[in-house]
Amino acid sequence: MVKRVAIVGAGVSGLTSIKSCLEEGLEPTCFERSSDIGGLWQFTEYVEEGRASLYKSVVTNSSKEMSCFSDFPFPEDFPNFLPHARFLEYLKMHANKFNLLKCIQFKTIVCNVKKCPDFSTSGQWEVITEHEGKQESAIFDAVMVCTGYLTDPFLPLDTTPGINTFKGQYFHSREYKHPDLFKDKRVLVIGMGNSGTDIAVDASRVAKKVLLSTTGGAWVINRVFDHGYPSDMVFTSRFQNTLRNCFPTPVLNWLIGKKANSWFNHTNYGLVPESRTFLREPVLNGELPGCIITGKVLIKPSVETVKENSVVFKNTPEEEPIDIIVFATGYTFAFPFLDESIVKVENDQASLYKYIFPAHLEKPTLAVIGLIKPTASLVCTTEVQARWATRVLKGLNKLPSPEAMREDINKRKANKATGFGLHFDLPLQEDAAIYLDELLSFIDAKPNLLSLFLVDPLLAFKVFFGPLTPYQYRLTGPGKWDGARNAILTQWDRTIKPTKTRVVQEPPDTFSYLPKVFSFLALLVAVFLIFQ
Amino acid sequence: MVKRVAIVGAGVSGLTSIKSCLEEGLEPTCFERSSDIGGLWQFTEYVEEGRASLYKSVVTNSSKEMSCFSDFPFPEDFPNFLPHARFLEYLKMHANKFNLLKCIQFKTIVCNVKKCPDFSTSGQWEVITEHEGKQESAIFDAVMVCTGYLTDPFLPLDTTPGINTFKGQYFHSREYKHPDLFKDKRVLVIGMGNSGTDIAVDASRVAKKVLLSTTGGAWVINRVFDHGYPSDMVFTSRFQNTLRNCFPTPVLNWLIGKKANSWFNHTNYGLVPESRTFLREPVLNGELPGCIITGKVLIKPSVETVKENSVVFKNTPEEEPIDIIVFATGYTFAFPFLDESIVKVENDQASLYKYIFPAHLEKPTLAVIGLIKPTASLVCTTEVQARWATRVLKGLNKLPSPEAMREDINKRKANKATGFGLHFDLPLQEDAAIYLDELLSFIDAKPNLLSLFLVDPLLAFKVFFGPLTPYQYRLTGPGKWDGARNAILTQWDRTIKPTKTRVVQEPPDTFSYLPKVFSFLALLVAVFLIFQ
Repeated sequence: MVKRVAIVGAGVSGLTSIKSCLEEGLEPTCFERSSDIGGLWQFTEYVEEGRASLYKSVVTNSSKEMSCFSDFPFPEDFPNFLPHARFLEYLKMHANKFNLLKCIQFKTIVCNVKKCPDFSTSGQWEVITEHEGKQESAIFDAVMVCTGYLTDPFLPLDTTPGINTFKGQYFHSREYKHPDLFKDKRVLVIGMGNSGTDIAVDASRVAKKVLLSTTGGAWVINRVFDHGYPSDMVFTSRFQNTLRNCFPTPVLNWLIGKKANSWFNHTNYGLVPESRTFLREPVLNGELPGCIITGKVLIKPSVETVKENSVVFKNTPEEEPIDIIVFATGYTFAFPFLDESIVKVENDQASLYKYIFPAHLEKPTLAVIGLIKPTASLVCTTEVQARWATRVLKGLNKLPSPEAMREDINKRKANKATGFGLHFDLPLQEDAAIYLDELLSFIDAKPNLLSLFLVDPLLAFKVFFGPLTPYQYRLTGPGKWDGARNAILTQWDRTIKPTKTRVVQEPPDTFSYLPKVFSFLALLVAVFLIFQ
Repeated sequence: MVKRVAIVGAGVSGLTSIKSCLEEGLEPTCFERSSDIGGLWQFTEYVEEGRASLYKSVVTNSSKEMSCFSDFPFPEDFPNFLPHARFLEYLKMHANKFNLLKCIQFKTIVCNVKKCPDFSTSGQWEVITEHEGKQESAIFDAVMVCTGYLTDPFLPLDTTPGINTFKGQYFHSREYKHPDLFKDKRVLVIGMGNSGTDIAVDASRVAKKVLLSTTGGAWVINRVFDHGYPSDMVFTSRFQNTLRNCFPTPVLNWLIGKKANSWFNHTNYGLVPESRTFLREPVLNGELPGCIITGKVLIKPSVETVKENSVVFKNTPEEEPIDIIVFATGYTFAFPFLDESIVKVENDQASLYKYIFPAHLEKPTLAVIGLIKPTASLVCTTEVQARWATRVLKGLNKLPSPEAMREDINKRKANKATGFGLHFDLPLQEDAAIYLDELLSFIDAKPNLLSLFLVDPLLAFKVFFGPLTPYQYRLTGPGKWDGARNAILTQWDRTIKPTKTRVVQEPPDTFSYLPKVFSFLALLVAVFLIFQ
C-alpha cells in the first residue's frame, strides 16, 4: 500500500499535494530546490536556474475569492488581485496553518526518479536527490511531480530572421525584473501574452519608445470588470458556463468579441485577434489601451526581419530603430529527472490521463500536478487534481484501463471542437469548470445542485448563479469543510472590504425609480395598444 | 487706436493671443520669463519660480481633436492624448507655422503694468520689464495677461492639524517630478484632483504603501471611453449638450453617477462623491481602479490629524505610518505685476466680464486670457477668448456698460443653479460649449446650424451630432478657415490612425445581423399583438 510519497517542488502544486497527502494519511516528503516555498511566487531579484522567474510588477490573474485554497479563504483585507508578495504571504499562512513546512526538504534538487526493479508489483520509485552537493537515494511508494511549466524559456531565434546580426540587447521575458533597464531605450516586446503586455506597459513609463509585436492579436480584458467587480467573478459561474456551452462556438466567440470591443474597439487599437474560430486566452491588462491611446505603446504585426539596429515588421515599409528586444514568447517544459519512457513531452503536450497520470504505467503511482492551463486559477485546479490523485495513489479510486485512458488522451490531443461552447487551440488549455467537476465526481465531492436546491435553496442559488469559487469543492464528500457554506455566503463581503476604505453617508438614491417608472409607462402603453 | 499690444506669458494663452493680434493687424510683443514657449507644457527637471510645473508622467486631459488650435489640427500620427513632450512639440509646430516666435522676448519678466497718466483718454499702459537684470519700460496700447492660474501652490497647512510635528517629508504636488523619491516609502497624497490621482498612481509602482485622501470624493472617468473612443469626443457634442441642458440638474447628476458606476462602483471603491447637488470636475484616470483593486492605492477620508510619523484619518481608529505627504491641494492665483485696483482677486475669483475684461476700466484695453476652467480644452477656449478680446481691444467689438458687466459678473459669482443642466460649484468652472458660443456670437463666428443644415447637411449633421471639435469655430465669420469643413469630416480618421498600427484582414462580421433579427422578430410580435 502506498504510504511514502515524494513530491517534487514546493510551489502551489507541491504545497497542495503535501496537504492532500496529509489529509489522506500518507507521508509526503517534498523536495524543493530553493530555500523557500512558493515556487513561481517567490520573487527574487535575479533569475535562478531551474526555477520560474517573476517580474517585480506582476499581479495575480485570478481574484482572491477565485484563487484561494478551497478551505482557506484569503483574509478579508487582502486585495482582490494580489501583487506577488501578498500572494506569497498567503501561501505561507496556508502552509503554517496546515503545518506543511515540516514535510519539505529545502535546497534539495531531484536528480533522478526511476522505477524500482520490482515496479510492476510494488509500484515503487527510487528518488535520487542532491542537497549541498551530496547525493542521496530513497525509495518512495509514489511520486507527485509539481514542477510546473514555466521554467524552460522558449526563445524562437530560428524563426526570427536576422536576430544574429542585431547589435542591441535581447533576452527572454523570463530575465525581466525591473523596467529600469528600458530607460530612454527603444524597446520591442515580441509576444502579447500576459507577460509581454505587462512588460510593454512597464517599459512605456521609462522608455523612449515601446513597440509590442503580436502575430495573432488577442482580446484584452480589464481586471476591473463591469461595475468594478473582478473579471473572473463576473465571468465564471455555473449558470454562465451552462449558458456558454449551449451557444455554438462561432456565436460565442462573436459575443466575446462584442463584449471586449465595448471597452475598446480592438480593430481600432490594432489588437483584434486574427482567428475567430479558436479562442486564445484573453490578456488581462487594464492599462494597455491607455498606453496605446497616449502613444506610449505601439502595436505592431509580426517581425519580418531584424537588422543591426532596427526591426522591420510584416506589411510595414519603414524600419523601426530598436535598442532592446524582449522575447515574451512563452515556455516549453520538460522533466529532466524522469526518463522519456515514463512521461514523454511532445508538441508541448505530455500524454497524461486527465493531465495527471501516465496511461501506460503498470502501477498508477506517479502523478503530475499542475501541468494544465485552466480557465480558472491554478490554485484551486491543482488542489482538486491533488485530492483526486492522492486518492488514486492510495488505491481508493481506480483509473480506467490503459486503453480507455489512451483513448481519452488522444481525443483531447485531437482537440476537435464540439461545435458548442468555448474552444481553445492551445496545448494544456482546458475549460476548468467541466474538468474540475469531472475530477470531483471521481471522488464524490461534486456538489449536487438538485438536492442542494431542496435542502438549502439560498446556498444553491449562490452556487449556481454566483461566482464559481473554490469553496464549492468542499461542500460535500471527502475533504468536506464545514466553513464552505459560510465562505460562499460571505464571498462578496470579502471582495468589497479591501476597496471600500472610505465610507460616505450617501443620500438615498432618489432617481433609481426613474427607469422603473419609464418601464411601467411603456408597459401601460403597450397594454393599452394591445387591448384598445 | 490700439496698435501695440503687450502679452504677458508665452504659454498656450499667450501664443494664441499673439496669433490673434497678428490676424487683427496688431503689433504684439510677448514677454516670457523662461527661455522657451509652452508655459506649463515646458517640462523641466526642477521647479522654476513663477512658472507652472509639470510632473514627468503627465498626459493631456483633452484629446488631440478636441484640444487643437482651431485652424491647425494635430498631425494624424500624434496620439490622442499627449504626453507633455508631444504637446509641446505641437505648440512649437504651431508657433513656427504662424511665425509667432518673432514676437516673443524670452527671459523677460514683467515687473509692473500700470496705467499711463492719460489712461482715461489713451487707454495706454506702461509695462516695466526686466531682462538679464536690466529693467526697461515701454508704452503699449493694450495688455493681454496670459499667466494662467497654476503657479501659486495652495498649501493648507493651517487646516492640517499636527503638520508641524510631522518628522517625515511633505511638499506640494507642484514640486513632484518623478516617482523615484517614493521608493519603498509610505506615501500619503492629500487631494484627489487629476494631479493627486496621477501622483498616487505613479507612487504605487515603487512605494511601500500609498494612501490617497479625499474629502469630497469624485467620479473617475477613463480617457479610453466607450468602445475606446476618447472620453471627451464621446461626451461633448452639441446634441448631447442640448440634451443635458434639458435635464433637471439632480437627474443629470444621477445619470452621470450611473454611467461612472458602470465602469466601477464608486461606493465600493471608496470614491463616491459626497455631494450629489453640485458636480465636481471628474478625475481622468484609467489606472486608479486597477491600483485600488490590487491594493496598491488605498482611498482614505480626510485627515483628522498628523502625528510625528503617522496620520489619523476621520472616522478611522488606526494610525497609518507615513513617510511622505504630498499636498495635491491645487493652486491660488495672483497678478503680482498688476495693482489691485486693476484686477482684484477674491475667493479664487477675479471680477472679470466673461472671465476676460475688468468691468470698471475707463478703456477696455486690458484682457485676461485663460483664467477659466472650462469643460473643454483650454487651447480652444483661450483661442476663442483671444479672438474676441483682440477685436474688443481694437475697437471692432464693444463691451456693454460697466453696470451691465458688473451685473453679469455678480450673477456668475452668485453661481445659482438654474435647475437644469450641469452645475459646478467651483470658481472659474464653466460649461465651455455655451460660453464659447456666446463669445463667438459676439464676433459673428458662431456657426448657424439651421442654415448649415440647408446648405451642407452632411457637415451640419457632423457639427450637431459629432464631437464639438474646435474646427467648428472657424466655419464662418472673421478668422474663417477654409480647411475647417474638411478637418471636421476627417476628425475620426485622425483619431483612429495613431492606434490602428496593426491591420488585420478580418473575416466578415457573420453574426452582426443577430441582434437585428431579434429586434425584427420582437417588432413582428408587437405588431401582431397590437393588430390581432
